[in-house]
Amino acid sequence: MTERLVVIGGDAAGMSAASQARRRRGPEDLNIVAFERGRHVSYSACGIPYLVAGDVTDPDDLVARHPAEFRERQRIDLRLASEVTAIDADRREVVVRDPEREYREPFDQLVIATGGVPRRPEVPGALALGIHGVQTLEDGIRLLGYLDRHRPRRAVVVGGGYIGLEMAEAMLRHGLDVTLVDAAEQPMRTLDPDMSALVADALRQEGGTLRLGETLEGFATSGGRVTAVHTSAGEIPADVVILGLGTRPGSDLARAAGIAIGETGGIRVDRRMRTSVPGIWAAGDCVETFHLVSQRPVAIALGTHANKQGRAAGINIGGGYATFPGVVGTAVSKLCAHEVARTGLSTAEAVAAGFAPYGVVTESTTRAGYFPGARKIRTKIIAERTTGRLLGAQIVGEEGAAKRIDALAVALWHGMTVEEMTSLDLSYAPPFAPVWDPILIAARKAAEALA
Amino acid sequence: MTERLVVIGGDAAGMSAASQARRRRGPEDLNIVAFERGRHVSYSACGIPYLVAGDVTDPDDLVARHPAEFRERQRIDLRLASEVTAIDADRREVVVRDPEREYREPFDQLVIATGGVPRRPEVPGALALGIHGVQTLEDGIRLLGYLDRHRPRRAVVVGGGYIGLEMAEAMLRHGLDVTLVDAAEQPMRTLDPDMSALVADALRQEGGTLRLGETLEGFATSGGRVTAVHTSAGEIPADVVILGLGTRPGSDLARAAGIAIGETGGIRVDRRMRTSVPGIWAAGDCVETFHLVSQRPVAIALGTHANKQGRAAGINIGGGYATFPGVVGTAVSKLCAHEVARTGLSTAEAVAAGFAPYGVVTESTTRAGYFPGARKIRTKIIAERTTGRLLGAQIVGEEGAAKRIDALAVALWHGMTVEEMTSLDLSYAPPFAPVWDPILIAARKAAEALA
Repeated sequence: MTERLVVIGGDAAGMSAASQARRRRGPEDLNIVAFERGRHVSYSACGIPYLVAGDVTDPDDLVARHPAEFRERQRIDLRLASEVTAIDADRREVVVRDPEREYREPFDQLVIATGGVPRRPEVPGALALGIHGVQTLEDGIRLLGYLDRHRPRRAVVVGGGYIGLEMAEAMLRHGLDVTLVDAAEQPMRTLDPDMSALVADALRQEGGTLRLGETLEGFATSGGRVTAVHTSAGEIPADVVILGLGTRPGSDLARAAGIAIGETGGIRVDRRMRTSVPGIWAAGDCVETFHLVSQRPVAIALGTHANKQGRAAGINIGGGYATFPGVVGTAVSKLCAHEVARTGLSTAEAVAAGFAPYGVVTESTTRAGYFPGARKIRTKIIAERTTGRLLGAQIVGEEGAAKRIDALAVALWHGMTVEEMTSLDLSYAPPFAPVWDPILIAARKAAEALA
Repeated sequence: MTERLVVIGGDAAGMSAASQARRRRGPEDLNIVAFERGRHVSYSACGIPYLVAGDVTDPDDLVARHPAEFRERQRIDLRLASEVTAIDADRREVVVRDPEREYREPFDQLVIATGGVPRRPEVPGALALGIHGVQTLEDGIRLLGYLDRHRPRRAVVVGGGYIGLEMAEAMLRHGLDVTLVDAAEQPMRTLDPDMSALVADALRQEGGTLRLGETLEGFATSGGRVTAVHTSAGEIPADVVILGLGTRPGSDLARAAGIAIGETGGIRVDRRMRTSVPGIWAAGDCVETFHLVSQRPVAIALGTHANKQGRAAGINIGGGYATFPGVVGTAVSKLCAHEVARTGLSTAEAVAAGFAPYGVVTESTTRAGYFPGARKIRTKIIAERTTGRLLGAQIVGEEGAAKRIDALAVALWHGMTVEEMTSLDLSYAPPFAPVWDPILIAARKAAEALA
């Protein structure tokens, strides 16, 4: 008998799961229905800041695969503008609302890929015109339209994480006066303060203003449109406001259905992406995953994880075997010509996880110092005291700096010590690295600091 | 009593050893004498092609540290233009010849860092003017002088390895007609033929001519100056010839002194860089090292290994403990805008080492496909049949492609399988990678090919 797979959410995780299941099981064996509440599926949410900045000129470029491809080539019954409002785990049905009706759809297998919910500040004026989130493709298109119509002069970005910084760059590239507000004393809280200070410097160098340690208290409006941001330290005039406060796991539907939710607020899944209810799977920004260094659950909203998790779920539903063993917390971003990357635990995270860490910062160049285009790269290694085990690493530099984090992420994956890392056979030629690669220098200094 | 350390060779390995020993033991405890037969010490030999190409304009830029620094700041008795002609292991002395005299110098500890010996073809005309090696800084300066004085129009590069390709680029950048001759059917024999074919295409695209499968038979000369290169397939007119045939380990002195030489022709050393004779150490291009994948000895001439090995020897001589556990065979190079990298074993090397390998080539982009500056990257994974264990990887691409080899080198270091690699937490953001990093795509395809 034909089984029915229902997928909630048409973005990276959901559509990867649907595609992988289909690759292994034909339409006669598996019926696949996917519900997406928006109008776009399978697009790069991480690309939205670059659409707004102008690096990407056509929103369609962000779309990896169009609905027709899923429908015609993969025989996936993809229903847009269709929001799942409830999961009935007992009756094995979901409740769906589309512009015309509400109905129930039965499933044998279910994939929950409901993504993240943007954090929105609960302060006066938060619904005013000119205040923009940038989570969905629609959000990005709407913001571009606003910039075009209203030609704002002053932008305030609320939140100094990855999205906040990327949106600060986007606004600077539009020629706006940009102020970034963050409640913490540093932007990029996922970095150690000494490294995030470099990011703050970079933003100032690009012409941005930082208002750190200021809590958002509300928005001043005029005629329903935002005119200023109120913080604990005063008022900042604003013609447009970007909310970059990140997301929380979109686990409400699952929670209401009695599916186990973890301590991070994400849906609990095992390494095969199974939830606590048999036949119900989850993947993407709505789940929590395992941090291989802290050995604790963690919720990280990132497209690459969503893709891998969705793929694993789909392979398993398709009858194969695939796992998502966890993450080491790798991330990368850029701010104009400045590159930022991190992996593993920050010093504060390491302490919270029960480690006694120490940190060493080294400065080097991306190419041999004498080679044209050699750029500065600063690398911080965080290692365990007494053992020298690598716990985390952070990079701030210029062109060619950030992607080096990958070698550190693989070293971290294997629990290498900094002493072992000094022997790593990393590639060397003058256009690509100094004779001691920045990573080797960092490992050496960290090993010497241990001895 | 003060011990005496003698170092033979003033380049990366020798001077690293001397410096590290000095850091741990002061002049009252350790007397250090270093002999260098040339006039320069501690320079980047790998930078010479870029000096010739014009990327680096001052030869002095390639010098990491000057003689005065070693002499004055480190109290190392550095003697230039001083060639060690023999090692007397029994009497613990070396025989030294300088422009004025020959003398013997006693040692308690000895570091042999005699480097590599460039392979020179034993064919008629090989000593003609206009035929240039590019091993030493003097060679590079001499070649630049020749280009300047004689304004050659046609260059022939003999040898299609790293140096050959880098010198082909250098000659193209001087506006010369460039022909590259190699006895093999492919340049870059350290790559698999399907990947080296991409390098050959790149060279043609940049305007070079390839003469493959042609054996060098001699040089035509006129008035003592080269006028053409004779190969098994005919004559190639040449105003200047660059020899890029690589090097062999410079182990003759050691061999004559009765020190054990390995099957590769390099000096045999253990992981602490000790030779077969107590108190005699060796490091750099003159030694053979352990290949961690093939588990066989291998001789690889590369500045980064030389530096690490010299450092390890120096730390050990200084009373510390440091090892050089071996290599996985990582290398990187570029040809104009094309980047080439490899690590581990090629398919042929894997077969020779007793593995049954399979290979998978994937094509992707260095950034998200929609992001400006996304460049093509082709990745080949070589893995073991039945286990999927990674044995090697090769990358040919454009800007941003090659340095990705480092993550693969670390994966190889740990004997990862391609299936495990599909879960690696590599950094993702649109300016830095597609949502599936090229390495993840390569691992996935290799894992699928296994299943």
